[in-house]
Amino acid sequence: MAHETITRLAAQRRALPALAAALAVAPRIVAAQAADPLPSWRDTPRRRALLDFVAAVTTEGGPDYVPPAARIAVFDNDGTLWVEQPVYTQLTFMLDRIRAMAPQNPGWAADPLFRAAIAGDVRTLAAGGAEGLLKLAGAAQPGNTPEEFRRIAAEWQATARDPRWGQPYTRLVYQPMLELLAYLRAKGFDTFIVSGGGVEFVRAFSQDVYGIPMHQVVGSTFALTPGEADGRITLTREPRVDFIDDGPGKPVGIARHIGQRPVAAFGNSDGDWHMLRYTTEGPGRRLGMIVRHDDAEREYAYDRESHVGRLSRALDEAPQRRWQVVSMRGDWARIFP
Amino acid sequence: MAHETITRLAAQRRALPALAAALAVAPRIVAAQAADPLPSWRDTPRRRALLDFVAAVTTEGGPDYVPPAARIAVFDNDGTLWVEQPVYTQLTFMLDRIRAMAPQNPGWAADPLFRAAIAGDVRTLAAGGAEGLLKLAGAAQPGNTPEEFRRIAAEWQATARDPRWGQPYTRLVYQPMLELLAYLRAKGFDTFIVSGGGVEFVRAFSQDVYGIPMHQVVGSTFALTPGEADGRITLTREPRVDFIDDGPGKPVGIARHIGQRPVAAFGNSDGDWHMLRYTTEGPGRRLGMIVRHDDAEREYAYDRESHVGRLSRALDEAPQRRWQVVSMRGDWARIFP
Repeated sequence: MAHETITRLAAQRRALPALAAALAVAPRIVAAQAADPLPSWRDTPRRRALLDFVAAVTTEGGPDYVPPAARIAVFDNDGTLWVEQPVYTQLTFMLDRIRAMAPQNPGWAADPLFRAAIAGDVRTLAAGGAEGLLKLAGAAQPGNTPEEFRRIAAEWQATARDPRWGQPYTRLVYQPMLELLAYLRAKGFDTFIVSGGGVEFVRAFSQDVYGIPMHQVVGSTFALTPGEADGRITLTREPRVDFIDDGPGKPVGIARHIGQRPVAAFGNSDGDWHMLRYTTEGPGRRLGMIVRHDDAEREYAYDRESHVGRLSRALDEAPQRRWQVVSMRGDWARIFP
Repeated sequence: MAHETITRLAAQRRALPALAAALAVAPRIVAAQAADPLPSWRDTPRRRALLDFVAAVTTEGGPDYVPPAARIAVFDNDGTLWVEQPVYTQLTFMLDRIRAMAPQNPGWAADPLFRAAIAGDVRTLAAGGAEGLLKLAGAAQPGNTPEEFRRIAAEWQATARDPRWGQPYTRLVYQPMLELLAYLRAKGFDTFIVSGGGVEFVRAFSQDVYGIPMHQVVGSTFALTPGEADGRITLTREPRVDFIDDGPGKPVGIARHIGQRPVAAFGNSDGDWHMLRYTTEGPGRRLGMIVRHDDAEREYAYDRESHVGRLSRALDEAPQRRWQVVSMRGDWARIFP
């Protein structure tokens, strides 16, 4: 019925300019009449800061106006968009891979590092530092192409379950942040993930879960070696990290990949301190926001002493840098979808 | 008037679902009635190959359907989207910078490399190889941030003139390719530049000239060093190339930055051979297309023996790999906007 109406309208050549104008104007009206875009955010100063910021940078002719091409918003992933306790999900994935591959690798039993991995002994692994973890990561992805790795990661993400909630990890994402991502995109922002995690692990679910396309995910990378096999070009993931997109690496990753300084940044730990600074030190109106985990009942409560997602310096400096600190307990009406 | 009509419609709550349906349907009808999307492409097999490919991958339910999230099209820049003769524009820019900075660097006069640069002696520079060019590139951008470099590049692009046409270099872009970029985007593709040139030089004009946002430009990169000055985070471009996005580097750049294999690739030289292969070796319907410079009158004619944009192997293999070879002379009704 609507289809027929429009077809008839379009057939009348004089109606076309009016139709085109209507198409340009109507979505804004529909959006304005739509329900609250942030229903899981309680009416607190954090919610108002978000709405005020978006209104300021999208008001044409206003002093803080930012054209759509410069509306770049960056989001940390672990602890900002989804749960990172008791350990980063990507580490759980890696240990599951190691366990699955152990029967084909009997030599691993003689190596304390691999024994700890197979036993899920995260404390011993953490004591071994980054070097040990990278050795494991390399062993867990032998000679894969990025496409193969992503397929393996996606299969795991579809089947693995978090022990506390019994849910797929990809459901342990924060509903208020999903609403925020959608709201910013509706307001002309490009939303990016800037994660310390491996870029391909995040790309395996970013589109389906966050609505963020693969090319808008920035992350740590393993070296890729080009080659040829069976008359086809190959790319092989090496067990060697060639870029760490964490801490001071986040502004580097942003500059290389996105190419311009964001106007809004969202993080939850000191690993995001550089990214928050890089974003909010730019000229004009900016927004920096920290998700603080203070809800042991509905999620987790941790900050300065945590083994993952440590939040100390960024929290101390938030007032002077005018970063908003979100209380999950106080500011969010619900946590998960 | 249209505004008022829609406001009235929107005020009637019962009209909203019909309006939403109209908004979803109407743009397709308008597009179908619009003029030819490729007016500068003559009606030849190349134009038909483009239209057939797009129709095939966008037909829902068809055997070659590609969902929008996977509609990735990649374009080389020099010689594919704009003129690369008599030398790459970025080299001209670099030599202009060296000349402008020479009075402040009297020591350069004693260095044969810099003397050749100041004299615009491209043959001597070419004989010095990549090492010499990189030394010059480093000298031409001392300690800049990416933002400073892009501002300098944009100023140059706005003022410098090509000697043959007396035009800004950013006007020496190929009108048929501008139409193709817009057409693909209208059909749900994401368009990317994958250039051997420095990424920030291309980002300085990609949005204005090609409608391609900065984050959809992949290119060669100089090392970026994070630091701090005057209480602010800094990023410094080092005179050290850390990624060469050319030849075998193009599939690597695509995998890292875009994260998935394109379905369509456009190039003009053997530097694009790997990218064309990587794209067209993927499963399902693919399109590889080579722009051949065979129009000395309206642009340039060159291929196997050229000092820039050498086209030999990719041309020889085009038939067996089913790559389309565009004749600028025969297939394009006009060259420049």
